[in-house]
Amino acid sequence: MQLLLKKLIEKNRDWVNHGKAANYIPELNKMDSKNLGVVLVDTGGKVYRAGDYQVKFTVQSMSKPIVLLLALLDNGEDTVFKKVGKEPTGDPFNSMVKLETLNPSKPLNPMINAGAIAVTSLIRGKSKEEKFFRILDLFRKISQNPKLDINMDVYLSEKKTGDRNRSIAYFLRDVGILEGDVEEILDLYFRQCSIEVTCEDVANMGMFLANQGFDRGSGKNIVPKYLTQIVKTFMVTCGMYDASGEYAINVGIPSKSGVSGGIMCAVPNKMGIGVIGPALDLKGNSIAGIKILEDLSKELKLSIF
Amino acid sequence: MQLLLKKLIEKNRDWVNHGKAANYIPELNKMDSKNLGVVLVDTGGKVYRAGDYQVKFTVQSMSKPIVLLLALLDNGEDTVFKKVGKEPTGDPFNSMVKLETLNPSKPLNPMINAGAIAVTSLIRGKSKEEKFFRILDLFRKISQNPKLDINMDVYLSEKKTGDRNRSIAYFLRDVGILEGDVEEILDLYFRQCSIEVTCEDVANMGMFLANQGFDRGSGKNIVPKYLTQIVKTFMVTCGMYDASGEYAINVGIPSKSGVSGGIMCAVPNKMGIGVIGPALDLKGNSIAGIKILEDLSKELKLSIF
Amino acid sequence: MQLLLKKLIEKNRDWVNHGKAANYIPELNKMDSKNLGVVLVDTGGKVYRAGDYQVKFTVQSMSKPIVLLLALLDNGEDTVFKKVGKEPTGDPFNSMVKLETLNPSKPLNPMINAGAIAVTSLIRGKSKEEKFFRILDLFRKISQNPKLDINMDVYLSEKKTGDRNRSIAYFLRDVGILEGDVEEILDLYFRQCSIEVTCEDVANMGMFLANQGFDRGSGKNIVPKYLTQIVKTFMVTCGMYDASGEYAINVGIPSKSGVSGGIMCAVPNKMGIGVIGPALDLKGNSIAGIKILEDLSKELKLSIF
Amino acid sequence: MQLLLKKLIEKNRDWVNHGKAANYIPELNKMDSKNLGVVLVDTGGKVYRAGDYQVKFTVQSMSKPIVLLLALLDNGEDTVFKKVGKEPTGDPFNSMVKLETLNPSKPLNPMINAGAIAVTSLIRGKSKEEKFFRILDLFRKISQNPKLDINMDVYLSEKKTGDRNRSIAYFLRDVGILEGDVEEILDLYFRQCSIEVTCEDVANMGMFLANQGFDRGSGKNIVPKYLTQIVKTFMVTCGMYDASGEYAINVGIPSKSGVSGGIMCAVPNKMGIGVIGPALDLKGNSIAGIKILEDLSKELKLSIF
Repeated sequence: MQLLLKKLIEKNRDWVNHGKAANYIPELNKMDSKNLGVVLVDTGGKVYRAGDYQVKFTVQSMSKPIVLLLALLDNGEDTVFKKVGKEPTGDPFNSMVKLETLNPSKPLNPMINAGAIAVTSLIRGKSKEEKFFRILDLFRKISQNPKLDINMDVYLSEKKTGDRNRSIAYFLRDVGILEGDVEEILDLYFRQCSIEVTCEDVANMGMFLANQGFDRGSGKNIVPKYLTQIVKTFMVTCGMYDASGEYAINVGIPSKSGVSGGIMCAVPNKMGIGVIGPALDLKGNSIAGIKILEDLSKELKLSIF
Repeated sequence: MQLLLKKLIEKNRDWVNHGKAANYIPELNKMDSKNLGVVLVDTGGKVYRAGDYQVKFTVQSMSKPIVLLLALLDNGEDTVFKKVGKEPTGDPFNSMVKLETLNPSKPLNPMINAGAIAVTSLIRGKSKEEKFFRILDLFRKISQNPKLDINMDVYLSEKKTGDRNRSIAYFLRDVGILEGDVEEILDLYFRQCSIEVTCEDVANMGMFLANQGFDRGSGKNIVPKYLTQIVKTFMVTCGMYDASGEYAINVGIPSKSGVSGGIMCAVPNKMGIGVIGPALDLKGNSIAGIKILEDLSKELKLSIF
Repeated sequence: MQLLLKKLIEKNRDWVNHGKAANYIPELNKMDSKNLGVVLVDTGGKVYRAGDYQVKFTVQSMSKPIVLLLALLDNGEDTVFKKVGKEPTGDPFNSMVKLETLNPSKPLNPMINAGAIAVTSLIRGKSKEEKFFRILDLFRKISQNPKLDINMDVYLSEKKTGDRNRSIAYFLRDVGILEGDVEEILDLYFRQCSIEVTCEDVANMGMFLANQGFDRGSGKNIVPKYLTQIVKTFMVTCGMYDASGEYAINVGIPSKSGVSGGIMCAVPNKMGIGVIGPALDLKGNSIAGIKILEDLSKELKLSIF
Repeated sequence: MQLLLKKLIEKNRDWVNHGKAANYIPELNKMDSKNLGVVLVDTGGKVYRAGDYQVKFTVQSMSKPIVLLLALLDNGEDTVFKKVGKEPTGDPFNSMVKLETLNPSKPLNPMINAGAIAVTSLIRGKSKEEKFFRILDLFRKISQNPKLDINMDVYLSEKKTGDRNRSIAYFLRDVGILEGDVEEILDLYFRQCSIEVTCEDVANMGMFLANQGFDRGSGKNIVPKYLTQIVKTFMVTCGMYDASGEYAINVGIPSKSGVSGGIMCAVPNKMGIGVIGPALDLKGNSIAGIKILEDLSKELKLSIF
């Protein structure tokens, strides 16, 4: 396995030259687009690492399925899906067109920004701090890494440049999807996106979903199975932005990408995988990262289809 | 003329029962939807009044052509039309779809909210207060009413409930159309919308445009002719929201409506007309107001076509 | 006047190098994009000609206001405007998006292809031939040219390559706007577009509209005034495709362009103008043609605003 | 199993009253909306039947994955996916908006009408008849029913009322996706939709996909595994029109619905299921059919997630 990972890193390393690090958040653009790393964790807890696996990066959109899980735990399915739909969109992750053209207005799914912001607004807590701590706590548990924290530079950069997300959030409040203080909700959202991880953290998070909510730390199921199923379904139908359909065909693993270049994969009952490769394609996914996962899926027959 | 106006008020009064006062700003909804008034001012300065002409109301979108005039004076055509286009849209006044689908992103015209907010951001002044005073000053001059001021209740209500406009403004800043502090620009925009007038003020404002920028107060032309032509052209192609085309056929007078139920008309070289009728149709225009103007246009042959 | 026209042709001739002849109908692409001609007819019937005024070209979309006039005569306003709206769109002339997103589905105005095809379907006649003859007859009368006829090569080329129009027409039948045989309606539409004219014919057609329906041939009003007003209003709000707003500001004359590079202008109560310049801008209008009309409008103060 | 199916039919029978048979093809509307039947075939070839399982119905959109399989066999992946994309859309099955707004224009996936028509155009054959026979032959093989044939009444009804599909097809030819005679391609498409089946046929077809292309008739694999994987992936991401996301969460089985009220399911390596229930919800899926599949998926743990 170790060898396989190493081989795939070498085989696909050249793809890092075919994309660029995200440029719409200045701090993200500072990432080294040449990096490429992968970590794989199996059900036995065995870990395999290759390439630039030590690189740190922020979770960005990879936070969406995890915070959805917490929102579902906090509120139940009915409440959550009153605020956000279940359908893939075919539109870019920051698109607002369907918010206006659909009646009633509702973000189509929790993996696009509009839906994710709506989901974040549902996290419970007496204060902004408590809400964020509850999110961070879940990330720490499922990544098996109690030291996870936010990258302050990225967080401040997001906050400063997050006008499109502000536009989305005010729209959502106008149509009654969001309640409360918009800047406070966005602050929470920017924080969740700025949690800093390594491939191994991400692989552990994927493993947790693959394991249907079983927490290796405590040896207990800390989330009901069917909620992890919901989350994995979204990862298949809308986890890779508007390239989810193609990815489902070529890779076939429930996955979620982030604009930092990370990808979190949950192979049901088998393994979790974390990949980093900041060079992105036009849809916002790691180019070399996807290539590695295509090869890995074929070699190990990981497609769920 | 006096008799004609009176007759038309009576003839069309029943139409006030076919619409509703605007409900998306709570304060506007307090207006009495049964009101119907009209004032006509001719080139000689002669004034004709009928119906509930004494009612006070806020200018709302009727401010858009006036503030556009000031922005053109402040910046010149080139600068203004770099930020906002010249085309009618066929979409509702608060639509954001084309902001996303057109490339590069730019509000299609200055009569929809997106365009009007962009225009307001161009008003010059050392401080927020100076900017607003310059706007108010122009309104006072062209309305021949030095006492014009804002309605604080409406202003605060707009500010409180203006989430769609916030959504638009943050979008505009994200795509580089707006610069500076969004809440400050919106504050200025909400103030300009909240200037309180009567039909006579509005008729005088229309007369000023009909007179190609001639200010009866000072006896001088205070705005170049061609700028008033630009403004009147927008009033024809996009002055009545997405009902402008039908209105151009049925009335044919450069006009601008506001969701308060007011309509400002400029019959080139002939007269200014101000109408109030808070009962609106689904597109946001005064139902009975339009009916009166249709009749008036036919009786006096006012169509420019 | 003669001199002025000549001067404007020379001044603007270089603009023919900034655009291209239409390429989506192969026959249109054969036009010489270097041509530039103009003819002006005044109320007294006096004719002024300059540049390549003898060039022949097909009316294309310039047929839309004329056939609309006939449809209004044949069916009355109510029937026609049940099938087609009165609003400018902000979308390209062949766009179908709003047909799908608006409910009920209805072409927004008679100057876009969808609306024009709906209008053509309303022309009366016992047979396809009679319908076309009635259209051709009106064109012959108002152009003062009894020899007008269709250009068979263009007609056949349109018929062969008209798939987008077929797509529009079948959509319209699906939603109940069109009735009858689609290919037959399109055949009539392709014929009307293929009527061949010169600038003088077009200037006479414009003069007829400027004259409110007065036919110089018979010395009679052959169309009610108010119908010519409706048509001219559409020419202002949607006559130049999705550049109508800008044109209204810069030129301010009710006009209709065609992808052959022709423009027909009706200056109310003053004159008709016909321009040809096959080099088109991206929106489908004659680049040099518009430049000449901008100059002419300024020189002679022709703007209606 | 027999008992379970019977129980689920009874439990969910009332749902047939909550929808209506499709009304846009007159013949489909003649179906008895009270019907509800299910057939399940397992890997051993054992068959379980319950409810109105003997009802005959046409495959409609259930033909899309099967014809896609044939097109992939005929042309290879590259050729097929040059003409049609791989992404879910979030739009209704007959939507054309994205054909216009995306550049280059290409149907987003082969499960919407635009994509399916493009796929059908790729089927090989010397004549229209040979092409259809090749399609029918594949259906006969994989349904284990050599007697399958088309329902002439439905076919003629589709052909007569297929204006939206004509609109789509002419659009596709205009943008270069379709080549050849549009009516001929549509004729083939209408035929494939009109193949008449029972639940058992459909269950066998699903079994064939579940079995990764293994044909029980011949005891051979007649389609490469990876092609059946592609098809099943589309069934998950876009098989249930714009309700695919919700269905993936609630049922989690690769499935394809048709407006006749049928649903074809392929539970990987386990079973095929065919359901009929002509009462449709607003998105075009069988209401009671989905309810049964939700229950069945929970009872037998069939979700792939």
